Amino acid sequence: MSLHPASFSTLEDYMSEVGQAARAAARVLATVSPQQKRTALLAVASVIRASAESIEAANAKDVEGATERGLSAAMIDRLLLTPDRIEGVARSVEAIADQADPVGGVIEEWEQPNGLRFRKVSVPIGVIGMIYESRPNVTVDAAALCIRSGNAVILRGGSEAVHSNRAFMAAIHDGLRAGDLPEAAVQLLGTQDRDAVGMMLRGLEGSVDMIIPRGGKGLVARVQQDARVPVLAHLDGLNHTYVHASADLDMAVDVVANAKMRRTGVCGATETVLVDKVVAAKFIPQLVERLGALGCELRGDVASRALDARINRATETDFATEHSAPILNLAIVSGMNDALAHIARYGSGHTDAIIATDEAAAARFLAGVDSAIVLHNASTQFADGGEFGFGAEIGIATGRLHARGPVGAQHLTTFKYNVTGDGTVRP
Amino acid sequence: MSLHPASFSTLEDYMSEVGQAARAAARVLATVSPQQKRTALLAVASVIRASAESIEAANAKDVEGATERGLSAAMIDRLLLTPDRIEGVARSVEAIADQADPVGGVIEEWEQPNGLRFRKVSVPIGVIGMIYESRPNVTVDAAALCIRSGNAVILRGGSEAVHSNRAFMAAIHDGLRAGDLPEAAVQLLGTQDRDAVGMMLRGLEGSVDMIIPRGGKGLVARVQQDARVPVLAHLDGLNHTYVHASADLDMAVDVVANAKMRRTGVCGATETVLVDKVVAAKFIPQLVERLGALGCELRGDVASRALDARINRATETDFATEHSAPILNLAIVSGMNDALAHIARYGSGHTDAIIATDEAAAARFLAGVDSAIVLHNASTQFADGGEFGFGAEIGIATGRLHARGPVGAQHLTTFKYNVTGDGTVRP
Repeated sequence: MSLHPASFSTLEDYMSEVGQAARAAARVLATVSPQQKRTALLAVASVIRASAESIEAANAKDVEGATERGLSAAMIDRLLLTPDRIEGVARSVEAIADQADPVGGVIEEWEQPNGLRFRKVSVPIGVIGMIYESRPNVTVDAAALCIRSGNAVILRGGSEAVHSNRAFMAAIHDGLRAGDLPEAAVQLLGTQDRDAVGMMLRGLEGSVDMIIPRGGKGLVARVQQDARVPVLAHLDGLNHTYVHASADLDMAVDVVANAKMRRTGVCGATETVLVDKVVAAKFIPQLVERLGALGCELRGDVASRALDARINRATETDFATEHSAPILNLAIVSGMNDALAHIARYGSGHTDAIIATDEAAAARFLAGVDSAIVLHNASTQFADGGEFGFGAEIGIATGRLHARGPVGAQHLTTFKYNVTGDGTVRP
Repeated sequence: MSLHPASFSTLEDYMSEVGQAARAAARVLATVSPQQKRTALLAVASVIRASAESIEAANAKDVEGATERGLSAAMIDRLLLTPDRIEGVARSVEAIADQADPVGGVIEEWEQPNGLRFRKVSVPIGVIGMIYESRPNVTVDAAALCIRSGNAVILRGGSEAVHSNRAFMAAIHDGLRAGDLPEAAVQLLGTQDRDAVGMMLRGLEGSVDMIIPRGGKGLVARVQQDARVPVLAHLDGLNHTYVHASADLDMAVDVVANAKMRRTGVCGATETVLVDKVVAAKFIPQLVERLGALGCELRGDVASRALDARINRATETDFATEHSAPILNLAIVSGMNDALAHIARYGSGHTDAIIATDEAAAARFLAGVDSAIVLHNASTQFADGGEFGFGAEIGIATGRLHARGPVGAQHLTTFKYNVTGDGTVRP
């Protein structure tokens, strides 16, 4: 049974009840067996498969509404559920079902001279608030990762996906029942009132432990600005690839082309290439050639433009912008310190890479760049929970506390200390 | 060279520069050798010892000022530095110097089928803002734990301890120089302007990663309310000891007496004892006898008062109050579920204990209580970083994110991913 706003006299009352139901469910989830969670997840996947047609029908209503409201083709594509995509959602839940249970494990264990035995054990965080936009698969991914990690979740999806989200929720609640887990473990808000978002961001009187926003920058920025509870998110993916003096230049061209152009809209795309001055004259024309052929505009500093007339002028703003488009910034740097300083100044702490054959230089870069993900001889587009082997991700975090980079089920946990004595008192 | 507010035209300019200096120092600290940090810490300890007399003289000025302003004897005692206490501070720094370096280690390592090699490595958080009151030893403890963990720290101590703090800072800066570390790794604010605290709580334009408040509840509540960056802290230590039906009652009396009365003002003190109804008639008179002899007032629910006339009436407010005084709340519960529900309702997530010989019951309590520290057959007064073997603690956290319980050098770290390929691109 889901709570419904119409049964409450005010939005505050409804949201408060949603929060309390989530907290109560979280207390149950914290101590259920790994097997119960697996059973629930496998049931979710199988119900999604069995009800693919009704999910498609619900989705058709959303797509129709979005078309009427004149949403862009890209937004409608994000919204659209095809049979293949629904199958993909079911498979993703199955993959999460098969992951090792991330809670209940002993992280560390030790004994003190007075005989007290300490065990640091992993436990769920509690209640996660998820605020997201159009993609309906986020409903299922977030629910599955939270069930796996023993957290209750309150979902607030976008208005454009409301029918699709409700159809998925029916499958999720069937699955929770199959695993004998409380339905309030996963709640989808029954209102699109924006005030409800504000209440979630203030934590529903202590009922929400963490907020994860997923969507456009407007959404993430609002959440980061207004939240009074911890937020796991990234606003920008302003990523760099540094072509070191020792780089294999053919490799560098291949990797940069992939890092920028595989998909320009993802947060792991490279926005700026830093080229060591030692190899600039040789490398830059090759890069311009390849990226030009791929339809990418290059915007460079004065030094790089002197090497190739096809490069447009980059402004200060360009270096501080996540283009999310086929536009690549280019700057020539005079060595490692210069590259590290550029990244420290303009980077967003998301993902940065070095191309180098010099292992010592690579090690210095990996240690010296203060980003969640730092790569050596690989494309920044690997910034993705699936590519890390996490099965799925609920988001990517660029903050420095609790978790960084792709956030999987294992990061939706915290710890506590269990301490055992034999009547031990403190002198 | 420390920055001085008089050299800046506005407080904002000064604070902004303090933040930038801290961030720059943090970048250096993140990659220095464990040996450099150890050398610096040992030098801090030896300079503190060598300048014990001048530290005492500086402290005398603070004590004199506090006496003139009519501060309480307890506050003056917290402020006072004796030769013994100064020696204790130096020893604490040496203990931290000898701890294993908590950064640079590989937490996890794996390879994906495409050949990418992942290393999750521990790194410092960056810049910590420490806001605290009278105890001058916090200046040194916080500085030492931050140096050990490779974090820069901005200290804002209480006005009543300003001379003592400055005397300690001279030793800390001598030590940093001895280890060839930047002096801005540890900065003590050169102003007591309260607006400076507000700026720290807003993060100094992204220069502060985390705030740790230490002091009275007024201070902690203000920090938790106003901070726009993550806060590691505890407001209340409303701790329970549950005397289970299977408890060894002699042990229970001993442990409760210690948990309440060893020191009533510490955050690990027990405030409420929950007694299983099965043992209440036998246990409660024994407890009243012992605690009465220790000068502790008992406030109980109706059922417990029926068993012993020496128990005063507890109100709802009592069960929700951290007395921090020789007052103990008492309630009779009808089993485990009732005890867990009481703790979930009134507890502050700090430290709770069960006294039981029944191992299954103890296991259920350890799993079911959602607090940072949960003990079996031991006193809640063990809630302390030193007792955990952490050497020292910068505070105790009751939040659920990043770290819980006593916060030592190992908890002032985060992680990042280093990923190595051989020109690997994403298909």
